Amino acid sequence: MGKTSELVRDLLSRMTLEEKVAQLCAVHSNRLTENGKFSPTKARELLKNGIGQITRLVGDPEADPRQAVELGNEIQRFLREETRLGIPAMIHEECLSGLMMRGATVFPQAIALGSTFSPELVERMTTTIRKKMRALGVHQGLAPVLDIPRDPRWGRTEETFGEDPYLVSRMGAAYIRGLQGEDLRQGVVATAKHFTAYGISEGGRNLGPARVGERELREVFLFPFEVAVREAGVCSIMNAYHDIDGVPCAASYFLLTRILREEWGFEGIVVSDYNAVRMLENFHRVARDAKEAAIKALQAGIDIELPDIDCYQFIVDAVREGMLSEKVVDEAVRRVLNVKFELGLFEEEMVTVQSEKVVQVLDTEEERALAREIACASMVLLRNDGVLPLSKDVKSIAVIGPNAAEKINLHGDYSYSAHIPSVQAWKGKEAVWKEWVKTVSVLEGIKNKVSPQTEVLYARGCDLGDDSRDGFQEALNVAQQAEVIIAVMGERSGLFKQSISGEGSDRTELTLPGVQRELLRELKKLEKPIVLVLVNGRPLELGWEAENLSAILEAWYPGEEGGNAVADVLFGDYNPAGRLPISFPKKVGQIPVYYNRKSTAFSEYIETDARALFPFGYGLSYTRFEYQDLQIQPDRVTSLEGVKIRFRVKNTGRIAGDEVVQLYIRDVVSSLVRPSKELKGFKRIHLEAGEERTVTFTLYPEQLAFYDEHMRFVVEPGVFEVLVGASSEDIKLQGTFEVVREQVITKYRHFASKVEVL
Amino acid sequence: MGKTSELVRDLLSRMTLEEKVAQLCAVHSNRLTENGKFSPTKARELLKNGIGQITRLVGDPEADPRQAVELGNEIQRFLREETRLGIPAMIHEECLSGLMMRGATVFPQAIALGSTFSPELVERMTTTIRKKMRALGVHQGLAPVLDIPRDPRWGRTEETFGEDPYLVSRMGAAYIRGLQGEDLRQGVVATAKHFTAYGISEGGRNLGPARVGERELREVFLFPFEVAVREAGVCSIMNAYHDIDGVPCAASYFLLTRILREEWGFEGIVVSDYNAVRMLENFHRVARDAKEAAIKALQAGIDIELPDIDCYQFIVDAVREGMLSEKVVDEAVRRVLNVKFELGLFEEEMVTVQSEKVVQVLDTEEERALAREIACASMVLLRNDGVLPLSKDVKSIAVIGPNAAEKINLHGDYSYSAHIPSVQAWKGKEAVWKEWVKTVSVLEGIKNKVSPQTEVLYARGCDLGDDSRDGFQEALNVAQQAEVIIAVMGERSGLFKQSISGEGSDRTELTLPGVQRELLRELKKLEKPIVLVLVNGRPLELGWEAENLSAILEAWYPGEEGGNAVADVLFGDYNPAGRLPISFPKKVGQIPVYYNRKSTAFSEYIETDARALFPFGYGLSYTRFEYQDLQIQPDRVTSLEGVKIRFRVKNTGRIAGDEVVQLYIRDVVSSLVRPSKELKGFKRIHLEAGEERTVTFTLYPEQLAFYDEHMRFVVEPGVFEVLVGASSEDIKLQGTFEVVREQVITKYRHFASKVEVL
Repeated sequence: MGKTSELVRDLLSRMTLEEKVAQLCAVHSNRLTENGKFSPTKARELLKNGIGQITRLVGDPEADPRQAVELGNEIQRFLREETRLGIPAMIHEECLSGLMMRGATVFPQAIALGSTFSPELVERMTTTIRKKMRALGVHQGLAPVLDIPRDPRWGRTEETFGEDPYLVSRMGAAYIRGLQGEDLRQGVVATAKHFTAYGISEGGRNLGPARVGERELREVFLFPFEVAVREAGVCSIMNAYHDIDGVPCAASYFLLTRILREEWGFEGIVVSDYNAVRMLENFHRVARDAKEAAIKALQAGIDIELPDIDCYQFIVDAVREGMLSEKVVDEAVRRVLNVKFELGLFEEEMVTVQSEKVVQVLDTEEERALAREIACASMVLLRNDGVLPLSKDVKSIAVIGPNAAEKINLHGDYSYSAHIPSVQAWKGKEAVWKEWVKTVSVLEGIKNKVSPQTEVLYARGCDLGDDSRDGFQEALNVAQQAEVIIAVMGERSGLFKQSISGEGSDRTELTLPGVQRELLRELKKLEKPIVLVLVNGRPLELGWEAENLSAILEAWYPGEEGGNAVADVLFGDYNPAGRLPISFPKKVGQIPVYYNRKSTAFSEYIETDARALFPFGYGLSYTRFEYQDLQIQPDRVTSLEGVKIRFRVKNTGRIAGDEVVQLYIRDVVSSLVRPSKELKGFKRIHLEAGEERTVTFTLYPEQLAFYDEHMRFVVEPGVFEVLVGASSEDIKLQGTFEVVREQVITKYRHFASKVEVL
Repeated sequence: MGKTSELVRDLLSRMTLEEKVAQLCAVHSNRLTENGKFSPTKARELLKNGIGQITRLVGDPEADPRQAVELGNEIQRFLREETRLGIPAMIHEECLSGLMMRGATVFPQAIALGSTFSPELVERMTTTIRKKMRALGVHQGLAPVLDIPRDPRWGRTEETFGEDPYLVSRMGAAYIRGLQGEDLRQGVVATAKHFTAYGISEGGRNLGPARVGERELREVFLFPFEVAVREAGVCSIMNAYHDIDGVPCAASYFLLTRILREEWGFEGIVVSDYNAVRMLENFHRVARDAKEAAIKALQAGIDIELPDIDCYQFIVDAVREGMLSEKVVDEAVRRVLNVKFELGLFEEEMVTVQSEKVVQVLDTEEERALAREIACASMVLLRNDGVLPLSKDVKSIAVIGPNAAEKINLHGDYSYSAHIPSVQAWKGKEAVWKEWVKTVSVLEGIKNKVSPQTEVLYARGCDLGDDSRDGFQEALNVAQQAEVIIAVMGERSGLFKQSISGEGSDRTELTLPGVQRELLRELKKLEKPIVLVLVNGRPLELGWEAENLSAILEAWYPGEEGGNAVADVLFGDYNPAGRLPISFPKKVGQIPVYYNRKSTAFSEYIETDARALFPFGYGLSYTRFEYQDLQIQPDRVTSLEGVKIRFRVKNTGRIAGDEVVQLYIRDVVSSLVRPSKELKGFKRIHLEAGEERTVTFTLYPEQLAFYDEHMRFVVEPGVFEVLVGASSEDIKLQGTFEVVREQVITKYRHFASKVEVL
């Protein structure tokens, strides 16, 4: 964010208190229509003093996208021409894994993006999302999610890039760069959320209180946000709903002002999560009424209340009654106007959009290809006894399971289909549906892939949610006829009430829901190879499946090209190289099992140890890689120069493939208890069969620092272990270096290690 | 603790550095023997400079108690006569639920004491323990446990008084008063442990890191310790093993000095948990070697290292090398000598004990009666369809289950039997065993109780731990012949390796271990009434049992009179009135479910809600109670005077019984998020059939205070709800009062409400 322009200063000086407060408020677009058309009457009522933001213009799946875009033009015209100061609104939308709009490309869900270990792919994705959004007249996207999920019961786990703060920070920075672009005049404001520690709510219950000390808060939960602000220059931050030690994040001066603005120098806008200001009154009970809630939120540092006019309207009275300084209001308004200025909203041609054209090209061939490429890159092969890759000439395949033929089940939460109340509601609209949903099911993907001679049989077998076994027999009959069984199972997200993952869909169990495992047990009795394809949003308990099935492919919610991507991997057109961005426990009673625990956190249970079944960073390939020749220079670190960690990696198998090389460190002795290991670098590299490359990580001293007993950010002298591996537990090469003198870090220069591949 | 005496000052001034450091160390008694007898040679080697403490004199179950006491006399004689300064040692023992010594009375485990809701009984128990210990020459007991367990997976849950800080504080204060007595010259130093927040280790894994903010730390986890120090005058504190936000409790200056000594004015001694100093090096990795570990621990505030000479011996070098100020050593030694002085250890007749007499009367009739009384009071009736109480004239009873005929399974961890490696080790020692173990099994208790005509059949049915179903058929045959089935099941504690609860026995599952539920399912098919008696140490998942069985009695580990007490309750000689001191979840995947969560912590899961199956404070009776006529005075609180909460409670049933009346409050709106409700008073009262009494709680303003955003301890103006109930969820009467003005609490006057029953 740049400096405040003359225009903004001038504007601010001419605004009435009502006009200022209006800039801190939002209105949902659907409140400005009548019979589906823009209503000047309603606009005159709701927008008379202008408005800060318009909420969800194109997001309603029942609405026509073209009409929505035209509504945006009308609203902006009204604001420019019929309000005193003519300030246009920012329009915001959801865009977690693609713009949340019917017809726009549905990319793989965030947890799948995390699995790619490829920030480059994420940046390409958000680059195309940016262009689409801006062309539609949208200025802010409410993503990325930078939460660190440590409780897989939590339904929103799928919206994150995984459990590791470093991985999340790299994915988040790439996401933000792509979405905001080089110049905000062609960019979309990214919104890093949810600030902060939302991923450790009590019991995995959404909105539940988070328990965390300041040190871990800073090192783990704040780190991705710090990188978003200081490295990636994110323009907006959204608070989290919950409280930390009694202080709701929406009312936390410590988080929203002291750390975010004073320490990190954040100049952008803080928006409230939907209804979070009101929740200070009716959920957290820390405000007597809406006015008090507004005062608390604004004073803490929330500039804009979303999604609609509610508590912040009382700011006018609060100022008039002397309960709130107008300076606080001015400061928030200045930030809002600043962003609008940088977005180019004060230039008319930057605001009005050509709805006709953009809607026609919502989901281009290139975008579909990118969606498929990312989906392929995200697939994690968890187990393979050799059955994969399958031959395309296999005589017959039984495709079975409740996620096999479904389309929108491949979409994560915050895709457009997430707001469709139920599949039932689509009944009778099959024609409309067909036009809308261009998603390729796994069954279709397989049919697209195999030879014309291959017989592809299908049976649903059972439901995801209910416990009916009525479909078992049909599934067994179908399976009996096939050479190999592909079971497509898991969860579904974002379908109100019927969802099993996603926002508000927290679980007490982590096994496959319903009778899916039971169906697998029955299929197992047929003594045929079973390949399990998982479409789901959180780590699952897969102990039985890992022991009893031939292969398991974790596909997450792979998006509109998911079916093709699954087939690409199953039949060997794509060699899988996705890695788990989150650890899978053996049992729900064992959580948390995140890999970067302290070494003191592994004591065994009576029934089992405390280790994950599949750890962070884990994933199989159809080829093999060898690591050798670790060199560390210097081995005694005396200054702030980086440590070079070099090694060679070779594809020793017979086919090309990607390997995700991972660099971990361990601080051997410190003044405080440190994690057992921490990811500090990674790179996904492509190697042809037999090819060898040299990888060099430059690890910077900042990356070794932590908050000591005085909360100084410091690199302590002592030995550090270097662990180079193919997962957090599959360590291939080990070495050490020693830091010779203490270094107090006052200015972060490097948030990530540099990687060179030669 | 009083002021430092002249004697202590004089002693200190004459001590060499080695002699000082020796006062901060301990030696295990068994290192001072040869062939079971005191060894002057070893004493000259290990005790030449004196010693602070002797570890576990009478605790070895294989050792002869009389010899042990004599060994104590020899050690003290050696110290008095053959060391330069002649300072006797303090001898410490475990005494959680009775002195941990073969032959001493085994009372019910701490969680059962919590269930009594009767501080009076706890004080009577520790009064008798005090007399016994002091008569044996023991000066310090390593109890009570004041941890707040919130994760039932944690094996040490059974050692606590439950999940509520107020209940724990009242039980803890009573425990300490009883153990220390009026005058320490006849008293035993109590040790409040584990300081602090040990009950929320990550994943319920023992020693795992705890996550908690300072506010909740103070309000919940420190509160029972604050009461122990400031109200009950506890003379010793023991650190916890784990770390909080990277700082091991054993190295926490903040906890051990700033809060404990500077804020609370604690004058007693801080002892390390066994090996906790060394663990700074080899577990937490915050010290390079033993010397650094010693310096960190002593500087933080640990006066004495237990259980044996290890790191603290290096303090001599540390001082000589200038790494540690001798003043720090002096201060710790002064505290140690002070306590020894107050214990009367500088008077010879106070040190030497008459071993003959005391051993003969280790477990008197009165003590057994008290053990039975407490066990009766602790039983919690969780379910009863009317089958209970049973008639003593019932024709035939089948007593079934792996805890039915066992004796030491009725003992909790830290009873003498807890250190017996395995039941296997008793083989061949049956005669010895019979003499030692005077515990009454449930089977024996039932046989003692019923009429001569009643046939009592028995079958073990299955094991607690393994999955063999070999005993099912016999159990079913036996059950088939009976009118009623009493199944005695659960867990077992403290038997090394085979334990299912207790220290180091953490679980991932909360169901009845092994095939016990399966056996119950089979028994259920016989269509006879089944009464389940639970002998266990933690909240269990009892959903199926609650739905399918006629009655469930939670007996915890009820101690040596447990079998009789169970029979007293089952057959109606005692009307049960124990209340759960900890919430029972529906499923392990639902934890935590502690009752005093914030109201924001109850969002539902897909599979179930977030509520407990059996909540805190819950327990049934054979009679009924009615509450009425709540009066609150004043309803507007303007000063630090108390609020009087008065109501009537009546036994409307046909038999006498106890009712545990419970007072909860809820702060309706506060500046920070507050618990949904908090226990602030309770009283167990006896009512004859038809009897009515008036209960008056005086609630003091301090009890309404919390730590605000500035960490001021403050009562905020506003409305408070008053909830009077028979459990945390069974609220009988509700009212409100209003605090009119803010009150910043600078000095605590009342840690508890006053109760009057008229």
